[in-house]
Amino acid sequence: MHHSISNSGLWGHLPHPYRARRQATGYTPVMNATNPSSVADLIIHPEWIVPVVPRGQVLTNHSVVVTDGCITGIVPSNEGQRIQAIEHLNLPSQALLPGLVNAHGHSAMTLLRGIADDAPLRTWLQDHIWPLEAAFVSETFVRDGTDLALLELVMGGTTTFSDMYFFPDVTAQRIDLAGLRAQLVFPVLDVATAWATDGEACLKKGLALRDEYRDHALIQIGIGAHSTYSVPETTLRKIATLLNELDAPLQIHLHETQAEITGALDTHGERPISFLNRLGLLGPRTQCVHMTALTDEDIDLLRSSNSHVIHCPRSNMKLASGVSPVDRLLKAGVNVALGTDGAASNNRLSMLGELQMAALLAKLESLEATALSATAALEVATLGGARALGIEATVGSIETGKAADLIALDLSQPHTQPLNNIVSQIVYASNGTELTHSWVAGQPLVRDGKPLTLAPAEISARAARWPEKFKAHKASIDPTGNHLS
Amino acid sequence: MHHSISNSGLWGHLPHPYRARRQATGYTPVMNATNPSSVADLIIHPEWIVPVVPRGQVLTNHSVVVTDGCITGIVPSNEGQRIQAIEHLNLPSQALLPGLVNAHGHSAMTLLRGIADDAPLRTWLQDHIWPLEAAFVSETFVRDGTDLALLELVMGGTTTFSDMYFFPDVTAQRIDLAGLRAQLVFPVLDVATAWATDGEACLKKGLALRDEYRDHALIQIGIGAHSTYSVPETTLRKIATLLNELDAPLQIHLHETQAEITGALDTHGERPISFLNRLGLLGPRTQCVHMTALTDEDIDLLRSSNSHVIHCPRSNMKLASGVSPVDRLLKAGVNVALGTDGAASNNRLSMLGELQMAALLAKLESLEATALSATAALEVATLGGARALGIEATVGSIETGKAADLIALDLSQPHTQPLNNIVSQIVYASNGTELTHSWVAGQPLVRDGKPLTLAPAEISARAARWPEKFKAHKASIDPTGNHLS
Repeated sequence: MHHSISNSGLWGHLPHPYRARRQATGYTPVMNATNPSSVADLIIHPEWIVPVVPRGQVLTNHSVVVTDGCITGIVPSNEGQRIQAIEHLNLPSQALLPGLVNAHGHSAMTLLRGIADDAPLRTWLQDHIWPLEAAFVSETFVRDGTDLALLELVMGGTTTFSDMYFFPDVTAQRIDLAGLRAQLVFPVLDVATAWATDGEACLKKGLALRDEYRDHALIQIGIGAHSTYSVPETTLRKIATLLNELDAPLQIHLHETQAEITGALDTHGERPISFLNRLGLLGPRTQCVHMTALTDEDIDLLRSSNSHVIHCPRSNMKLASGVSPVDRLLKAGVNVALGTDGAASNNRLSMLGELQMAALLAKLESLEATALSATAALEVATLGGARALGIEATVGSIETGKAADLIALDLSQPHTQPLNNIVSQIVYASNGTELTHSWVAGQPLVRDGKPLTLAPAEISARAARWPEKFKAHKASIDPTGNHLS
Repeated sequence: MHHSISNSGLWGHLPHPYRARRQATGYTPVMNATNPSSVADLIIHPEWIVPVVPRGQVLTNHSVVVTDGCITGIVPSNEGQRIQAIEHLNLPSQALLPGLVNAHGHSAMTLLRGIADDAPLRTWLQDHIWPLEAAFVSETFVRDGTDLALLELVMGGTTTFSDMYFFPDVTAQRIDLAGLRAQLVFPVLDVATAWATDGEACLKKGLALRDEYRDHALIQIGIGAHSTYSVPETTLRKIATLLNELDAPLQIHLHETQAEITGALDTHGERPISFLNRLGLLGPRTQCVHMTALTDEDIDLLRSSNSHVIHCPRSNMKLASGVSPVDRLLKAGVNVALGTDGAASNNRLSMLGELQMAALLAKLESLEATALSATAALEVATLGGARALGIEATVGSIETGKAADLIALDLSQPHTQPLNNIVSQIVYASNGTELTHSWVAGQPLVRDGKPLTLAPAEISARAARWPEKFKAHKASIDPTGNHLS
């Protein structure tokens, strides 16, 4: 065991900035902002609040009260100014939003960003990504890649994310250090990797990790079955049994391409989602990633089982996989979340960029300009993600009683001017660099545009050591240099 | 006449920074870097050069020599270091590229950014945009909107752009002040506007402007017929006659939606491109903007006439218009350029963002991950645009003898790390904010991330005055507030 897990509650092992100040000053925390004599941790006074719930609302002249990691009030500014608090923070050109939920990724793969582009999914995986992973994946690879990913995720507005990758124990450590909220779905596939020898070993190691993180307030561990084509039926049946016992989330790549569907029809005589349904693997804790090329029957199965769809628009575009019919899914009552996927297939990890893409692509896919409006896209990227991860009681909107997972976006730059419509400027005009502040459970991750828990220069320097290793390896296996693009 | 046009040659009326220094020092400019005793204006030493021509090349350890606004050499760095020059500029974390060519836009419309989203083209135009334009378009509107657009264009890597909007005389003034290279296509449509009473008046005013700018080195004036559905056949025939006389460029919105094509079939019994062809309006100076829903016959007409396609992927997505089959067009030998369109339908004016979108969308449209590779996307956004505008002898690539229209992109930020592939990181991983330097004809527009010819605070302040005017107008015509979204 290389790592230690904190028992300090909501904030992992990070020092709690307000708790320390409380101890120094003798303040007593309170959970109710309606008591004006009480002392809050933080009162945020943004120019606008986009709470996501109620849908479509944009508040001005309001303040958000944060106490002990929770939102304990949303009050008129003149009232907010009078509440005693350890800190009052004015954000005069910013909109305050719930933190974005990035529901699918492989964060360590940032190290492979740009290493193999312009290739279809199967070629990309089998000829490029898997051979490199076989040669390089290690605890160090996962540490360096995850840190680089976390930095980009945080600066792009993500406060909660889901990760599926080898050495999830290392990923968990890095997330705990960085202070994000996360779901880690440990990968299950029947291929020997540096992390585990086969599907059985994946499950054993992953379940041990789940036990270890049982009481962590910000990190939950679930099962990440890679796909129906890479995990044998016997292993999928074992997972079904486990899920019944554990009430754990399951995430799986499903219907990523038409070729996957055709392959499944050839192999089992069923579409992948029907196959999963027959094995008892669909349900309210099942997160189906990608879901392109859907029939009405596929959508019925998603709805009747209360399974979730994780839409990854940029990855689907870049690999020419297809496109998930988000507008139809939402109209059918299926919950949709949003994910960046990994940087080897995106190649960005910006949730602000991703939600913009989702809104644009939904219109093209449905040929309806009304599809996935700015408001709807923002809901998918926040509450939709929270629902998919089963944490909608805690995150996904700015509501009293929820955790203080918040982001502030500066709308004063020329590219978001003039401010005809706040939500539109965020969704359609942002370039993904508007973030100035970010909090998870009241813990600040970014302040005035500077990350507090991640060190950019050191992280970039560690990442920069990898390309020459990849190049030397490529040269050694293919002296013509033609093996990888 | 409010404005004066400079006769100072390549740089409009801006003071030429090197010319002034030459006068102070008595240096004699030379046009040939191979003469080591000569004195150049500027030697740029970037970490990488992506010259676009030859295709796929990335140079390291090379320098670019700039003299009198032109690229006068691309030489090994050790040689470049020894060339006498007024300035040597080291760009140790930057890639130097040809400036991006944004081949279609309506820059004044930035003031309408976000004012009407999530509506299809016809509704968006007829119920939202045209009524607002009827109420507000003026010289002041065009000045304020154009300046805001120019700032965003320049900071996103555009050095040449094409504009189609009312009061093109005002647009020309603002561009001349800002120092970009531009094609202005004056709008021709048979609707009374604040600028012109009808199609005839548009032509008269536009041709006078063309005369006025005949000798301007950076600005050329062409004809912007709005579309086949908004310009009567008689006016289009007049334009055909004029084009024969003038050798001027023609830009037209064409095949923007399937509805436009269906409408043309109902009206003339022909698809819009066949209609244009019959009127003699297709040719090597014809720029067809949008071009969705193409048949093989449409593509044959484009190729045989040597007409150009201006692809506007984000605008087409946002308005649910459709998608231009860029991969098929390029394979058929049709030149493709790229445009952002206006900020009311995009809502961004970042060419770095637009070329990223073009590369991603081409893969989805063709379901081929090899479609519009990173290298091909960069060529479309540079040389493709230059060809469309008829200025490929001057701009579009870093080649000795071309104008020094250059941009430098900083690749040291975490989101472009690690540097497995320079062109991939620029095309797929950039967020559009990497620009640190920009030059047009050797004139610096941006230095160290700061615009030199545009004042962000003043421009934003002028733009910020408009939303309340729009709101008051909306309230006056529709007290329920339901007229505009």
